[in-house]
Amino acid sequence: MSNFPAKLLAGYRNFMSGRYTDERERYRVLADTGQKPHTLLIACCDSRAAPETIFDCGPGELFVVRNVANMVPPYQPDSQFHATSAALEYAVQVLQIRDIVVMGHGRCGGIQAALDPSMEPLSPGDFIGRWMSLVRPAAEQIQSNDLMTQTERQTALERVSIRNSIANLQTFPFVEDRGDEERISIHGAWFDISTGELWVMNEKGDFVRPDIEEQTLQAEIASA
Amino acid sequence: MSNFPAKLLAGYRNFMSGRYTDERERYRVLADTGQKPHTLLIACCDSRAAPETIFDCGPGELFVVRNVANMVPPYQPDSQFHATSAALEYAVQVLQIRDIVVMGHGRCGGIQAALDPSMEPLSPGDFIGRWMSLVRPAAEQIQSNDLMTQTERQTALERVSIRNSIANLQTFPFVEDRGDEERISIHGAWFDISTGELWVMNEKGDFVRPDIEEQTLQAEIASA
Amino acid sequence: MSNFPAKLLAGYRNFMSGRYTDERERYRVLADTGQKPHTLLIACCDSRAAPETIFDCGPGELFVVRNVANMVPPYQPDSQFHATSAALEYAVQVLQIRDIVVMGHGRCGGIQAALDPSMEPLSPGDFIGRWMSLVRPAAEQIQSNDLMTQTERQTALERVSIRNSIANLQTFPFVEDRGDEERISIHGAWFDISTGELWVMNEKGDFVRPDIEEQTLQAEIASA
Amino acid sequence: MSNFPAKLLAGYRNFMSGRYTDERERYRVLADTGQKPHTLLIACCDSRAAPETIFDCGPGELFVVRNVANMVPPYQPDSQFHATSAALEYAVQVLQIRDIVVMGHGRCGGIQAALDPSMEPLSPGDFIGRWMSLVRPAAEQIQSNDLMTQTERQTALERVSIRNSIANLQTFPFVEDRGDEERISIHGAWFDISTGELWVMNEKGDFVRPDIEEQTLQAEIASA
Repeated sequence: MSNFPAKLLAGYRNFMSGRYTDERERYRVLADTGQKPHTLLIACCDSRAAPETIFDCGPGELFVVRNVANMVPPYQPDSQFHATSAALEYAVQVLQIRDIVVMGHGRCGGIQAALDPSMEPLSPGDFIGRWMSLVRPAAEQIQSNDLMTQTERQTALERVSIRNSIANLQTFPFVEDRGDEERISIHGAWFDISTGELWVMNEKGDFVRPDIEEQTLQAEIASA
Repeated sequence: MSNFPAKLLAGYRNFMSGRYTDERERYRVLADTGQKPHTLLIACCDSRAAPETIFDCGPGELFVVRNVANMVPPYQPDSQFHATSAALEYAVQVLQIRDIVVMGHGRCGGIQAALDPSMEPLSPGDFIGRWMSLVRPAAEQIQSNDLMTQTERQTALERVSIRNSIANLQTFPFVEDRGDEERISIHGAWFDISTGELWVMNEKGDFVRPDIEEQTLQAEIASA
Repeated sequence: MSNFPAKLLAGYRNFMSGRYTDERERYRVLADTGQKPHTLLIACCDSRAAPETIFDCGPGELFVVRNVANMVPPYQPDSQFHATSAALEYAVQVLQIRDIVVMGHGRCGGIQAALDPSMEPLSPGDFIGRWMSLVRPAAEQIQSNDLMTQTERQTALERVSIRNSIANLQTFPFVEDRGDEERISIHGAWFDISTGELWVMNEKGDFVRPDIEEQTLQAEIASA
Repeated sequence: MSNFPAKLLAGYRNFMSGRYTDERERYRVLADTGQKPHTLLIACCDSRAAPETIFDCGPGELFVVRNVANMVPPYQPDSQFHATSAALEYAVQVLQIRDIVVMGHGRCGGIQAALDPSMEPLSPGDFIGRWMSLVRPAAEQIQSNDLMTQTERQTALERVSIRNSIANLQTFPFVEDRGDEERISIHGAWFDISTGELWVMNEKGDFVRPDIEEQTLQAEIASA
């Protein structure tokens, strides 16, 4: 018998007797015809911010990249292994997704590390240090603002980092133009673990509550 | 007004009125005290294989890396950006997780690409080609076996690749020994999208049905 | 007949036939015995952020200072006219208030002016320029952060300015110690005109939603 | 957890479930398009004389300065901080208001202090003493009149002080002429806390009941 974690096996049995039973046909069809997810979602590894949970998505809906601090590096066509760029390429060129969402969240450990200049490398390889250097200039600029609280600086960098990743996304030639007539829409989102609030980025780059925006839209429609 | 995908906003509202309402306190506590996930789960981006769904996990349980074909590159302490290694370092050194699971699945697009020698690069950067080269020697050896069907070759590489990632995991010094007395347990799992079956790797490297193993074990105990 | 604004006279008639009729006795008693407001509230002149409206307060509850951007200057005992310091002195020494609230709000025109280095004086006297110079160092530091959006910078300065005013409040000797045993509690609040959300400052200086905090409190009580 | 006054939080909840719910759209529009208040209202800090209450005004109507005894200092373009002059400048030059109302009220604590020559400074800074010196000559003249009762002297100074502030308003160049064709109308008002009566200043400087004036006017018309 495997020493596979008992908690996961118990959860798997719940899945089989619950959701899988309800969606057996959907899994069958998805296996036969292949996945056609509508959205590429770039999220953090954080255990409190699973995109399928937050967006209540079922199988086949979200193609999900998860790395520390939900970052996209800039386009760098060299001979290295690029986990995130590879997933991006696959989602755009093979799956033909139409929407990309970069979703950050509050209390992000990666962002916290980026804002802590005194942090020692976590191991001789310093992988987190290297990875978070993707937002180093932004982190330094924000860290130097001693008028904002630590929490305010963290939220600010979490949001700046989302915009940074979106700017990096736009450096990929196939994102800007994949050769068909359809444009890919790129979105930002930020999830507040504590309150459950979702904030989405508007066209000015600001993060706003979507339900409120929608009410305004409905009001605009009503008054038109 | 944001053009954030309506489907995601609708899903988010389900989450807020459903799961979040039920688990409000859990989110609150997780925000205040920080995450303490029991497991690092390395999974594929595939929209049909979300780990939180398959293992029915709630917030705070799984620290999740998702890349194409759920791969771990070997330890490579250079100056590049290593998304997966950074997440691994954070999970082991900061979050002190005790279990690592590499979960593959059937009909994996990345594995399929690795087995197709005629496949053109998806873009001039050839990010998927580079990324899947992590399993190239295995892919070439399996592809040359013309006695197995295409489906058998694919399943074989999906499982070989999981063992390959586990071997790479073991090249990270901090995984083998993070300086405390506790050993990190490493596990493999493979999910069949079509049937919903979960197979877990046993100590010999074979993938077996956990419930079946248990039944066999119970049968062995009963017949002893 | 006076040319007194007709709109105000109409509103006054509503007041007399409505609230005043309901609270006639309360006004009578307040006139006879004098006011005993529980709180000194320092708010902005902005027409969208009237404290009595936002806190649904009746006559006798709030002693209210309103100036542009709800600011408190530092203690400066010279021979000048100090409108805000005089009100503070009266509230603390004569009315014996126990709570002081500095309430800022979103989209504050004064804060916007402070963040606009190209703004010309509004008149040769440059009264707004002088007044907003109370937050000039903070405004310059925040304005130099070109990673945050204009809206994010504005919110940041609105909140920094509240903390700045609270720090200035604490330079007044009679606020820190008015000679009795009772301590004066100082609070910060920020009102979002668009959504109606109220955020209150916690002990770390961060602004949080009070209803959420309270739920946590209730949960703590329930779980105690 | 914040110790924000519970009474204010309770009032805020009333606001959100009551007035804000009714006027959600109005707040939204006011946030998006900015405020366009019709009137600058200079009122006292007194908790019994909130202008939005007395004139039953909603969000967006009144730009409100509140200081002790609702005073306007004379035009003094120096390098000091002038809270009231700054608000006046902003209301006239940016918001382009058309009406200014100086509203006093009965039983004003600031006026009472100005009439009490034996009053000790409230603190070593003597901020109230300094502030009320704006009406010192008037106060001394009225105090010396021993034929009027104390109450009559107080009401008299409350009204003299309103005329004094109006005269000071007229020393501001931009109030007299802001460079457009539209004249700013300046008004005086006095509110009797005990009876709820509003008295408005007529062109001779007298304070009269507006409804009574109108009745008189109608009587004059009728008898003509």
